[in-house]
Formats: sequence, C-alpha cells, structure tokens
Amino acid sequence: MKNILAKWESLCAASSVLRFVDINLRGIGQVMFQDNPVTGAIFLIAIAWGSYAAGVPQVAIAGVVAVIVATLTAQWLRVDEKSLASGLYGYNGVLVGLALATFLDPSTLLWVYVVLGAAVSVVAMLGTANVVKAWGSALTFPFVIITWLLLLATYGFSGLTGTALPSGSVVAPFQPYEANPLQLIDLVQGVFQSISQVFLKASGVAALLLLAGLAVNSLAAAGFALAGAILAVATAHLLGAESALITGGLLGFSPVLTAIALGTVFYRPSWRVAIYTAVGTIFTVIAQSALNVALTPFAIPALTAPFVLVTWLFLLPRQRLEEAAVAGVEKPGATA
Amino acid sequence: MKNILAKWESLCAASSVLRFVDINLRGIGQVMFQDNPVTGAIFLIAIAWGSYAAGVPQVAIAGVVAVIVATLTAQWLRVDEKSLASGLYGYNGVLVGLALATFLDPSTLLWVYVVLGAAVSVVAMLGTANVVKAWGSALTFPFVIITWLLLLATYGFSGLTGTALPSGSVVAPFQPYEANPLQLIDLVQGVFQSISQVFLKASGVAALLLLAGLAVNSLAAAGFALAGAILAVATAHLLGAESALITGGLLGFSPVLTAIALGTVFYRPSWRVAIYTAVGTIFTVIAQSALNVALTPFAIPALTAPFVLVTWLFLLPRQRLEEAAVAGVEKPGATA
Amino acid sequence: MKNILAKWESLCAASSVLRFVDINLRGIGQVMFQDNPVTGAIFLIAIAWGSYAAGVPQVAIAGVVAVIVATLTAQWLRVDEKSLASGLYGYNGVLVGLALATFLDPSTLLWVYVVLGAAVSVVAMLGTANVVKAWGSALTFPFVIITWLLLLATYGFSGLTGTALPSGSVVAPFQPYEANPLQLIDLVQGVFQSISQVFLKASGVAALLLLAGLAVNSLAAAGFALAGAILAVATAHLLGAESALITGGLLGFSPVLTAIALGTVFYRPSWRVAIYTAVGTIFTVIAQSALNVALTPFAIPALTAPFVLVTWLFLLPRQRLEEAAVAGVEKPGATA
Repeated sequence: MKNILAKWESLCAASSVLRFVDINLRGIGQVMFQDNPVTGAIFLIAIAWGSYAAGVPQVAIAGVVAVIVATLTAQWLRVDEKSLASGLYGYNGVLVGLALATFLDPSTLLWVYVVLGAAVSVVAMLGTANVVKAWGSALTFPFVIITWLLLLATYGFSGLTGTALPSGSVVAPFQPYEANPLQLIDLVQGVFQSISQVFLKASGVAALLLLAGLAVNSLAAAGFALAGAILAVATAHLLGAESALITGGLLGFSPVLTAIALGTVFYRPSWRVAIYTAVGTIFTVIAQSALNVALTPFAIPALTAPFVLVTWLFLLPRQRLEEAAVAGVEKPGATA
Repeated sequence: MKNILAKWESLCAASSVLRFVDINLRGIGQVMFQDNPVTGAIFLIAIAWGSYAAGVPQVAIAGVVAVIVATLTAQWLRVDEKSLASGLYGYNGVLVGLALATFLDPSTLLWVYVVLGAAVSVVAMLGTANVVKAWGSALTFPFVIITWLLLLATYGFSGLTGTALPSGSVVAPFQPYEANPLQLIDLVQGVFQSISQVFLKASGVAALLLLAGLAVNSLAAAGFALAGAILAVATAHLLGAESALITGGLLGFSPVLTAIALGTVFYRPSWRVAIYTAVGTIFTVIAQSALNVALTPFAIPALTAPFVLVTWLFLLPRQRLEEAAVAGVEKPGATA
Repeated sequence: MKNILAKWESLCAASSVLRFVDINLRGIGQVMFQDNPVTGAIFLIAIAWGSYAAGVPQVAIAGVVAVIVATLTAQWLRVDEKSLASGLYGYNGVLVGLALATFLDPSTLLWVYVVLGAAVSVVAMLGTANVVKAWGSALTFPFVIITWLLLLATYGFSGLTGTALPSGSVVAPFQPYEANPLQLIDLVQGVFQSISQVFLKASGVAALLLLAGLAVNSLAAAGFALAGAILAVATAHLLGAESALITGGLLGFSPVLTAIALGTVFYRPSWRVAIYTAVGTIFTVIAQSALNVALTPFAIPALTAPFVLVTWLFLLPRQRLEEAAVAGVEKPGATA
C-alpha cells in the first residue's frame, strides 16, 4: 500500500491533472474521514455500484460532478493548500450531489442545483470551520444545512420536484408496525446497509467495498464502522424501532460515522475512549429517531444531522477526556 | 445555619460517602442556583412530597437515580473538582430524571433511558459550558436538549410510550377558552404552582418547601422567586393566556428561574438590575407562550427552554450593565 | 450633500434634541446599512407613504415609536457612544415596530408589544453583537428573533390577534398555481416591490424613495440593491416560484439586503466580490423559499431570516476573500 501511494504521489507531483484527480478522490474518502486516494477510489466504485444496482446512475454522476465543482470552487476561493490537498473541501460537495440526485427527480434544474449546492457547500465549509475550530471539525454540517435548504425550497418551486422526499404530517404516537419478528439475516442486512447508507445507498456489496476502502487506510476505522453498525442495529431493535428502518440501515448510518469519528479520528484509543464512543454511538441512534420525528412536519430527511449533533456534543469536552487519558492509568496507543 | 453547614462540612471531609451525598444534594439545590446541601435536602423533600401527592412516586425515584448517575459520570470523566463539589454536574441530571419519569410510562426501558439521559447530560454540560463560557453559564440547556431528543425519539420506538406528552398539531389561532373569570385564589394558586413547576410539580406544599429551601441559603433568591412568579402570573393574565395554564403554573416556572438568575446570581443588585430583571421576567412569559406554540407540531413540552433563551439573551450584554452599575450613581450591594 | 450634512452636524452638536432626532434617523437608515440622517429621513417618507397608501397609518407610527424606544433603551443601558450615534441600536427596533403593526390587529396591547419588543431588541442587539463579533455584524437577527417570539406568543394570548399572519399547515408538495404567464410589467413590479418589502411594504413609490435614499449616501448601494432585486426576481421566475410571491416582492427583499451587504458594506468591491455576491444573492432566493416552507407549520413569516442566514454564511469566510483580493491581481476599489 505504501509503495502504491508513494508511486501515485510522485505521479501527482509531476501532473496537475493527476493532482486534481487525487484531491477529488481524497474528498470522497473524507466522507468517512480517510485522507487516502485509494480509499476514495474504492468508495467511488461503491457509489457507482450502488447507483447502478438501484437503477439511478444519475446519482453517482451527480456525486462526481459535485465533488469536482466543490474542488474548483475551493481553488477559486484560494483556501489553504494543505486542507484542500487533503480533500477537506470535497466531502460535503459529494454528499450534496448524491443527496440532491437521490431525493429529486432528474431535470435540467437538478443539475443547476447540484452545481450551486456543491459550490455553496465550500462557502459553508469555510464558515463552519471558522465557528467550530475551538472544538475541532465541521463534520458534515455544511452538507446537512445546504441540502436541507435546497430540498425545502423545492416545495415552493414548480421547476424541481422530489418524489423520494418524505411526506409532511404532524408528529403522531408510534404506529405499531406489523408483527414481523426480525430474523438474524434481517439484522445482518441492517448492519451492512447502515454502512452503505452513509453514501445514501442500500447495498450489501457497496458496504463491503466501503469496509475494504476503510481497511486499506485504517483497520481501526473499518473495525469501528462495523462495530458501530452492529451496536446501532442492536440498540434500535431493543428500543422497538420499526423493522423497515432497521433493516434498511436508516437508523444506523449516523451512528457508524459517530463510531469512526469518536473512536479513531479525534480521540486517542483506550478503554475509556471505547466506552465513551459506545455511549455516543447508542445516543446517536436516539438522536436519529428524534430528528426523524422532528423533521416530520417539514417533509425533509434527517441526513447525517444526528451524527453531527452527537459528535459535536461528545467532542466538546474532549480536552477533559484526553487530559484524563494522559493523566490516568491507561497509556494512550499510537495516535490514529 | 452556618454552624450546621460547618459541622456537616467537617463530617463530609472525614467520609467519602457523606461527601458523595453532599455533592448530590448540592446538585439538587443548583436547579435553583443554590450551592447548599441543606437547600438541596429541602428541595428533595419537596420533590418527594410532590411525587407522592400526585401518585407518581417513581418520579422522585427517577430524580434521585439520575442525580447519582450524573455525579458518577462526572467523576468518571474527571471533571474539575471545584465545579463537581458545587453540584454543577448534577442539576441537569436530576431534571432529566424527573422529566422522563413525568412524561413517559413506567417500564424497564424508562430506567435505561433515565440512566442514559443522566449520563449524557454530563457530557452536554461539559460541552455547553465550553461554548458559552464567554457569557457565563450553561443554565439548564443540557437538560432541555437531552430531554427533547429522548422524548422525540420515543415517537419512533414501540418500547417507550408517553401518555403525558402533548399531542401534535399545526399551529392554529388562539382558541377562546371558557369564560371563567379568574378569582384571586386562582392567581395565588398560579403563583405557587409556578414555583413548584420548576421541578415539574403542581403542588402548593412543594412550593412552600422550595421557598424555604431558597430562604435558608439566600433571602434574595426566595424574594426574587416569589416576585418573579407574581409578575409572571400577572403578565400572563393581562395578555389573556389560558386560565388552566396560568393556574397550573405552566407559564410561570421559566420566569421564576429568570428572575432568580438575573436578579440574584449573575448581576449585583441595584435598581437598574431590578428593572432589567423585571423586563426579562416579563419577556420570559412571552417566550414561554411562543415556545409552547412553536413546539406544537413536535408534540414535546417546552421545559425550561424559555428561561435558557431569555436569560442568555439578557446575560450576553452583562459587561455593559455591570460596568454601568460601577460607573453610575447606584452603589452595588454586597455580591450575591 | 456634504454641505447639508456638515450644517446638520453643527446644529446637532448644539442641540441635544436634534442630536436625538439624528440618531433615530440614522437608525432608520441602518436598516439598509446607511449611516446618514438624510437617507433615514427619505426612508421615513417612504415608510409613511407606504403605510398611508395601504390604509394602515398605524404601521408607520409604530415604526417611529419603536425606533425612539430603542434609542432610549440603548441610552439607559449606556451602550458605547459611537455605535449609538451611528444608529446601530435603532434599526432592529424600527423593524420590530413595523412588523408587529403589520401582522397584528390594532389594540392597546399592540402598543405594549411595540414598546416591549423595541426595548428588548436592544438587549438582543447587544447580545448578538457579542456572539458574532468574530465575523462581523448582528445584521437583522435581533429583529427576527424578537419578532418571531412575539408573534408566536400571540397564538397563546387572547389579547392579541393577527389576521395578517399566515395560517398553519404541514408542508405539502408544490401546488401548481394558475397558468398565468408573467409579463415584463409583472417582473418590473416584482423588482420594485422586492426593494420596498425590506420595510414590509408593497409600493413602487416607496421603492423609488428607498433607492433615492440609498443613492444620496452611496451610489454603489443603490446599484447593488437594484441589481439584487433584478437577479432575485429572475432566479425565482426561472425556478418556477409562485407568481404572486414574485410580483409582490416576497421572494426578493432578503436577496436585496444580501446584495447590499455582501457587495458594498463588508467586502471591498472587485470582480471576484461581484461574482461572490451574485451567488449569495441567488442562494438567498432559495433560502427564502426554504424558510417560507420551514415556517409553514408555525404560521409565522420568515421576515429577513434568509438574509441573515446566507449573509452570515457568506461573511464567515471573509478573511479568505479579502486576503485573496489583496494578494490577487484585482486592485480593491475605494473602501465603501
């Protein structure tokens, strides 16, 4: 792996076209916090497969268009070179593109929307990073806020329609679903689709590709992603969530991101961190259900807002836990 | 009083069990900003009485379990000793416990919820304190945000049901209530229940106990609590609020907290501060009505969010008023 | 113009009454970012004309009462002299007064509301300025938050009713409006009413007066206001927004403010800034539609929240663009 990356890096150093490709692949990898072009390439294959298998190839195309527009916008705005080269100005763009093409019907205006949304996601990324720099990362907040605005606005525009959007209603008591006891196979499906839904896809093959993409850069990230998905599905099942949501991975994709973020990226690993991450992952399932409910009157999806909310909450006291880890009996492992 | 506290302090210094009890009692006292174990003990009696009288003893038990879990969590997270000893990591926990047991039906999962909510309230407290340290205090924001998420999530879970939750609907014009002119006795009831509703109880006895608990630590706090409740009930009545809300104290508990906070805790007393506090208290009644309305589609209660919102608003310009007080003709009294 | 202002300034220096008038006129001018009493006076004529023409003279009176109350409150709170003299504590007040009298029925309590809202808008201004000072300006956030709370609260009070408020419902798919193709004259009307709606009026005469008021202080501001209105109307039309909203200026007033703010006040002019401003203006149209939709269940108007949201978003990365402008090939023009 190291050899491949070294070879690729030397090629990129010699070619501005390859460098541009490199930045965009890293942008795709950063959706799951991986600054690695190989990871990004594998993720791109997963996206393509998921779109193709679901009969919506425009979704993958929108993702690619959006990440390119985001990178070009970041260059035009002359953001700092190091963050740009790490793909930090691309991951929100790719998600905006995937989400818009997933929830809205294809049309010329959809592509205007994709370009505009991807460009503004960079502005939102710069702004969010400014505000939250005291406690770390913008996470996918720019993606969430820009996509929410773009989707909400369509209810006032005849030029854009969204058949895949939820329908609006006021919050009502839980409607008991059909007594359809979950089999182990359903739970396993829920675990894998929790991983693939990070890229808005319900696909076991895509999930395996995503795990592979994580593993080539960080075994810990792949491990926490899988463990987070298992914990999320188990939590949702025990709390009595609707079966279709569990098996479709719709209560698990935010917890998967929380698990990777808290477990491997922002805190140095230790037992204390593992317990803290588990609590954060479980609470993300609750936040996902809560935001699904809270957004019901607005007829928009929660996207990864539960992940952003809970991870910010659990990151804010970070100094505390890190100092504690340093001061305490546990020896911190190698930094991620 | 001073002798009792000195004696108790020496006992706590010698016993880690009593020290733990002390921290938890102060946590209960901090719900109304009092760092005093005797106040906390009297508040606990008020909670117990209110729960028993209403036939829901599990509410008081949930409050006690939650404050203990919160304190243990804070110790595990190795928060700073001084804040911990003052009970600052306990007051959100006790409120989370009281609220969950008040709004949700008893079940095994309720207790899981209480433990999880109390633990996460400490994380939220650390995080909120980090963000708002520029202008002071986290107030009860951690309680509000964690309880909202936990209650909203129940609408997606069959394992937890809430018969005491409001029902969802869209905002509709004010429905004229039955012409039932309020008697003085109704207004007096409204004043006392405004005080007891700080702990989610409608009980005159609990209100008197709470006033006593305040008075043993700070006569000013007791005075501002009572004055705040009277001002809130009068304001709500003049604006034409629904009688049941007024007499039940449901428009007054947030203003009571605003009055104590602005009047005695954060600003040094003066005529200017008294006027400023009165305006803040009146505006909290409006914010309470506004949030009741805004949360209608979501079928969750406003909790103390109006207090948090208005008190933050009125605390942000604090330097201004404190400098003014120093520079101006009024001499500030003894610091609270 | 310079002579008039110099003469006026010397009169104000000699009379505290004229100084007070000066502060209030500048407060009205600051609604569109102009620190100029002549601009404020012309704006006041526009407001008076718009109110008179619409048969609601109490709206203009409420605006005048509110700006005076706001200025007096700011003096009582001893805010810093320089900001006070520039009218920065008045513009939120005048908007609160105009909005309350526009949306609520006349009554004694309305005037209590106007006085209370104007006073609290100053507190909110001080607070917001504290929080956002890192990236610039409070904009009209204090107006928006205070007016939202006051309007929401009326749904719980029988003493205040709002016939001009929208009615609540859950979000529903776009309802195709009557096929009524827009004529050029409709679009022109939309452009002018987009400008006058900044002061909550649909009036071409008021729009011309507002443009004149801008022009006497800053030709660039008048130019960006007009260009912003044209761009907003064109964008809304291309996206298929409802005709009545476009021609009534209801999708254009926030973009007009965004265009002035980004184009002339906060960034030094250049081609890059002009493009950036255009993107921000277009995105404000989308944010306006989005907030119209998001506020549907709450039955309150979006006011200038879309302008605040998008302008904050586009201002946060300001250092970036300003540094880029300095470092780049463009020479910044004269500072606005």
